[in-house]
Amino acid sequence: MKDLYKRFLSSEEWLIREEVWNKNLQGVRESQFTLGNGYIGSRGVLEEIPYDAYPGTYIAGLFDSSGAQVPELVNLPNPIDFKISVEGEKLGLVAMDVLKHNRVLDMKKGLLARRTVYSNVRNERFDYQSVRFFSMDDPHVGVMQVCLTPLDNDTNIDVETTFDLSVTNKGILSEGRKNHIKIMEVKNIRDIYYASVQTFASKVYVNYAGILNCCTGDITQNTSERVLHMRAEKGKTICFTKVFHIATSRDVKPRNMKPHALKAVRKAAEAGFENLLKKHVSAWEKRWIGADVILKPDKELEKALRFNIYHLLIAGKDNGSTSIGARTLSGEGYRGHIFWDTEIFILPFFIYTNPDAAKGMLSYRYDRMGEARRNARKRGYKGAMFPWESADLGNETTPPWHRDLDGRIIKIHTMDTEQHINCDIAYAVYHYGLATGDKEFMMKKGYELFFEIARFWASRVLFDKSKKRYEIQRVMGPDEFHPIVDNNSYTNGMVAWNLRKAFELFEENKRCGEKWSRDLSERIRLSDREAKRWKSIAAGLFIPYSKRKDVIEAFDGFLRRKYIRIKELDNNFMPVLPKEATFKDIDTTQFVKQSDTVMLLYLLDGDFSHEEKRRNFAFYDARTLHKSSLSAAISSIMALRTGDIIKASRYLSYAAYMDINNLSGNTADGMHAASCGGTWQAFINGIGGMSVKDGILRFNPLFPKEIKCLKFHIRFKSYRISAEIFRNRIAITPSLKRAKRGVLRLEAFGRLCEAPVGKKTVFRG
Amino acid sequence: MKDLYKRFLSSEEWLIREEVWNKNLQGVRESQFTLGNGYIGSRGVLEEIPYDAYPGTYIAGLFDSSGAQVPELVNLPNPIDFKISVEGEKLGLVAMDVLKHNRVLDMKKGLLARRTVYSNVRNERFDYQSVRFFSMDDPHVGVMQVCLTPLDNDTNIDVETTFDLSVTNKGILSEGRKNHIKIMEVKNIRDIYYASVQTFASKVYVNYAGILNCCTGDITQNTSERVLHMRAEKGKTICFTKVFHIATSRDVKPRNMKPHALKAVRKAAEAGFENLLKKHVSAWEKRWIGADVILKPDKELEKALRFNIYHLLIAGKDNGSTSIGARTLSGEGYRGHIFWDTEIFILPFFIYTNPDAAKGMLSYRYDRMGEARRNARKRGYKGAMFPWESADLGNETTPPWHRDLDGRIIKIHTMDTEQHINCDIAYAVYHYGLATGDKEFMMKKGYELFFEIARFWASRVLFDKSKKRYEIQRVMGPDEFHPIVDNNSYTNGMVAWNLRKAFELFEENKRCGEKWSRDLSERIRLSDREAKRWKSIAAGLFIPYSKRKDVIEAFDGFLRRKYIRIKELDNNFMPVLPKEATFKDIDTTQFVKQSDTVMLLYLLDGDFSHEEKRRNFAFYDARTLHKSSLSAAISSIMALRTGDIIKASRYLSYAAYMDINNLSGNTADGMHAASCGGTWQAFINGIGGMSVKDGILRFNPLFPKEIKCLKFHIRFKSYRISAEIFRNRIAITPSLKRAKRGVLRLEAFGRLCEAPVGKKTVFRG
Repeated sequence: MKDLYKRFLSSEEWLIREEVWNKNLQGVRESQFTLGNGYIGSRGVLEEIPYDAYPGTYIAGLFDSSGAQVPELVNLPNPIDFKISVEGEKLGLVAMDVLKHNRVLDMKKGLLARRTVYSNVRNERFDYQSVRFFSMDDPHVGVMQVCLTPLDNDTNIDVETTFDLSVTNKGILSEGRKNHIKIMEVKNIRDIYYASVQTFASKVYVNYAGILNCCTGDITQNTSERVLHMRAEKGKTICFTKVFHIATSRDVKPRNMKPHALKAVRKAAEAGFENLLKKHVSAWEKRWIGADVILKPDKELEKALRFNIYHLLIAGKDNGSTSIGARTLSGEGYRGHIFWDTEIFILPFFIYTNPDAAKGMLSYRYDRMGEARRNARKRGYKGAMFPWESADLGNETTPPWHRDLDGRIIKIHTMDTEQHINCDIAYAVYHYGLATGDKEFMMKKGYELFFEIARFWASRVLFDKSKKRYEIQRVMGPDEFHPIVDNNSYTNGMVAWNLRKAFELFEENKRCGEKWSRDLSERIRLSDREAKRWKSIAAGLFIPYSKRKDVIEAFDGFLRRKYIRIKELDNNFMPVLPKEATFKDIDTTQFVKQSDTVMLLYLLDGDFSHEEKRRNFAFYDARTLHKSSLSAAISSIMALRTGDIIKASRYLSYAAYMDINNLSGNTADGMHAASCGGTWQAFINGIGGMSVKDGILRFNPLFPKEIKCLKFHIRFKSYRISAEIFRNRIAITPSLKRAKRGVLRLEAFGRLCEAPVGKKTVFRG
Repeated sequence: MKDLYKRFLSSEEWLIREEVWNKNLQGVRESQFTLGNGYIGSRGVLEEIPYDAYPGTYIAGLFDSSGAQVPELVNLPNPIDFKISVEGEKLGLVAMDVLKHNRVLDMKKGLLARRTVYSNVRNERFDYQSVRFFSMDDPHVGVMQVCLTPLDNDTNIDVETTFDLSVTNKGILSEGRKNHIKIMEVKNIRDIYYASVQTFASKVYVNYAGILNCCTGDITQNTSERVLHMRAEKGKTICFTKVFHIATSRDVKPRNMKPHALKAVRKAAEAGFENLLKKHVSAWEKRWIGADVILKPDKELEKALRFNIYHLLIAGKDNGSTSIGARTLSGEGYRGHIFWDTEIFILPFFIYTNPDAAKGMLSYRYDRMGEARRNARKRGYKGAMFPWESADLGNETTPPWHRDLDGRIIKIHTMDTEQHINCDIAYAVYHYGLATGDKEFMMKKGYELFFEIARFWASRVLFDKSKKRYEIQRVMGPDEFHPIVDNNSYTNGMVAWNLRKAFELFEENKRCGEKWSRDLSERIRLSDREAKRWKSIAAGLFIPYSKRKDVIEAFDGFLRRKYIRIKELDNNFMPVLPKEATFKDIDTTQFVKQSDTVMLLYLLDGDFSHEEKRRNFAFYDARTLHKSSLSAAISSIMALRTGDIIKASRYLSYAAYMDINNLSGNTADGMHAASCGGTWQAFINGIGGMSVKDGILRFNPLFPKEIKCLKFHIRFKSYRISAEIFRNRIAITPSLKRAKRGVLRLEAFGRLCEAPVGKKTVFRG
């Protein structure tokens, strides 16, 4: 038999392969093989839905709270549901003998292809091949094709394919599995199978329209049947093509939804598989041009990096006002909620490769500022206080408690204490403005966000009269091993930066004297006096420092906690918790889940001397267990910057392979988007040494031994820049969309220089 | 808080209670607490559908084969689906703290009532009470009521109640969970929630129409919403009443189904909870009058017996042409298939308490005789050969193979070898005719069935010329430890009886010389010559006998298998497999799963002397492991008849408590109907000593020590008989529907006597 889909596939460096079926990895593969286009995410489930399969179909921003503690990303009906049975025997990996099996995720084209050769109870063989994609060209359209060839005998087959309406959300123990949708209509309309559902609480309609085409060689026809009984002849391939269209009442007015869907699916089906695929592939090509990173010589590491970028690409959505959850649209971990992961870890990739998507993610925050203001007010603060976990409405959606397996109730503190989310958002806004030069966004939304957050912090700090300093008490830093601490180094450091920058931006805007700036100040009633107060708080905000150790102290009294030496590393060179300690009383030790101080050093890199960074990194790295998927990538960068090349490589690997090797053990619940984004930063900002200072793009590469070359494209202000980075050589080719001439000023190897537009300029270090 | 449903409940001897929630028993309770009315069976699932709950809703005779090896009872949408959550916390046994919990199955009224007091994360208490029933008056109607009272604070509640369309059939490993229905329509029609589904392969429509009423004390209103957000006030009870109607396209013409359902559910809802309940209870009363058995003095055993009878009552359906599966409508064990369990174990209860239902079960076979004839023809035999497992169409539905957990394929032989199903059906037909005197059924269906089965056997036997005897080779008896044996004692004994009786009945009918008899003979082309051949085969059919042991040999060469003594009994006094043997090579031993010979002695009791029975029972009982749920009841009767009083009591207990104590460990897959029916026989035919010989009803009671008295009602011919049986005294009160005078001739304590109609006559032993 011919491999039908081989001709569609890209070259090997773009392919993630499953070569054997391993039931224990089913959930992991489902997350890894997720397809999507920013609008929709569909887990890489096997079409026959074997035992313990977890179909997941999610639309960005579509949450529902019914029957749940807090809103959760709705698991929608599964269009990838295709069951064939041969005289009562189901063709499936769990059910039948498998002579051959492989699946391929083609990251370049966003395709999932499969081939399985089954043998039934009578030793008759069946060649099963399938391919599917969710169109990057029209995000509402999905296509799947299944081809079956009996290899030994003619046989009767039953085919069953629907939009599986029986899906549920996993929920948590105290909720049970539950569904968030009610079925509103299910109907055959000529050859179109139509289904409409509505979410219970958020009242969003979602409709599905599909056309199934069955091609037996001589005859090609559409069928409205969802169950087909057919005769399959030996050696002849029956090919099913299912084209479907999914839309919500947020995309189309409810009363237009049905005619719109019927028309759209008809149009798509008439275009046909090859045409739909062509447009999809060409849309993917455009995405990759700006996003791919070529790495030499380690092909495996390059593929791992590409895998991380692939998952960022399918999560990113141009414009709009939705953001990306901590597990993207690839699983239900954290119920699809949006954390600081988005602004600090994921956003930079989009700022530099797809600023439109980055703008959408920040608009998501801006559009929910009403809730953030109410939240601040409710707690007695001013300005805008964003929720630690955010869903559709922007209110606080951190579950207040969790019931564990033995019924114990565990209160969750993060929503009250992880207030650093606010400086993270401010940092992201500033970073976006700096790198994109998007004055319009900043004027309309950015500055307001930035100032309102500063205002929150100014109301949040306390002045200690005796010590004559500002303090922030009772917070949690990124290091969640120590809940509720005073003067957390990360929080205080970032807040000081936030307030100082807010003052500077206010002054700058005032200087420009434009109307929008005056309007803004009036609208949010911002005065010189308030801005000056920001400046003075920033100057007086206490950051704990240990003179004895000559390091920033993670928080007040951190050094009084017990220090235990890490004695052992695991197979991935990650620290093992010494026997003297337990996770139960980890807060009594100096072990951190991820280091707050290292995070601060990374984000405010320019504010610290090399020696400070070196000392602090070494000190905290000896205490970091990296039990967060956010830890390794940033540690890799800081190890590199402080000269610890061995650790830099170890952490880089750990971050890059996090999900492809299921290192955290829970990839089945969805991809770790922060690790994907962190990995990208580790390559571009770490090895490539890219940063922006004083409006200037800088490259100060720091290559570990095993890497020789890094090629990538970035967007900076109005430039599209192609960069080839070597240890001692940088080649920069800037271009402009609307001009053929011009010059990009940049810093390479610490020297200011210029790269003319349209030309490759080489700088040597 | 008041116990709202206490006033509805019967006295304690009718109640099966669950006093604590035990997750491990969830499935068992679901089977035990099944509600039904012969038309529909609904597992006793907790309304909130906790983790691992298995909702099961089955309609008698509604099978579907799509995606399955063989047809299976379709798990239909679950109308018992009612979820309440309190600010995101689900009220449920798995989810919340439970201060108090109990459920009560009221067997007298077919009611399942529940009360649970929950405490949420803020220690607020909620009193949750519910009751439900499937009307015995109108089998299409079901009613559930849920009442909630917040005990401590006012609170916001979310209520979600639908017909859960996401149910699936469990299937087997090689199939995976699958659904057999497609959704055709889901709609709110004013205050009615309407859903229509269709089975995939059998193309049966099933529709659901429901009305939800919500009563908050002051306001009572219907709502078409399936999700309600409400304010619940402290101390005030909110009461939801859901009335629903379920029908199939077999009950109503497809085009009339929808208007019919809407009208019917409206009518039911308007009648109201109390009225519906009243009619339901009164219909149940009628059922119990003819079926209840009162037992003195052991109240617990009486309740266990009643529990078995309850499950027979909810499985039995008047008239029609459906039969009862081995696990009734209480689970998916054996996929709802019909085995010999029905004719030999279940049917007698119906023959003597509800002959109409018994007639329906035999009509089920008669109406599928076309398939049985084809089956015989296909295998080169004559007459009618019934399938070992039967579903809707009457073709053979035994799965041909089974794939075990490590992928090994195990061929299943029962369909080819357990041909005794045919003599079992013949026996049941004869028994029905004898006990009911239903000449009409016998003329129209019974004799034809009987003769066609005899004809099959006559073509199945082989004549051994050298030994001058008829043999039956390559069969499996009820003892499935020995697959494929020659001259199985049970099969050969029953076949000889079948052929002999067939000859006698043929001769008798011929003597009566009536037209129907001549017509029948012509229709099935039955000649004197053929009938005479039956007689001679019956006379020459070999039944293996061991002269050395002076016992019937279970099959050719049984005594050459290894004999191992049973050394140990378990806690239930059931034999433990000795260490020298393993189940894997059990066929090399003399251990039997259940004894074929004992079964034969029981069914053809009159053909054996007391001494023969005693010897054979003792011999085989020492070799029986009772690994079938069919074994204990019959062993109990034969132990009693042969004087082994201790064993009789042990086996009686084991059979009576089989499902109430989950003795077989798989009650979760459904009730063991054969054990329920066998238990009834153990009391009535065993202890009560009831039997029919030469058209005369006989009572020869045999009381074990612990039982003093047995009272029950039976139907015999046109009589309704009330019997009170004591060790040495029998009181019989016969009545006739259409006459006030007459006399019942019967045998009591071995003596022929007469009991006048309308009077209690006492006979002493």
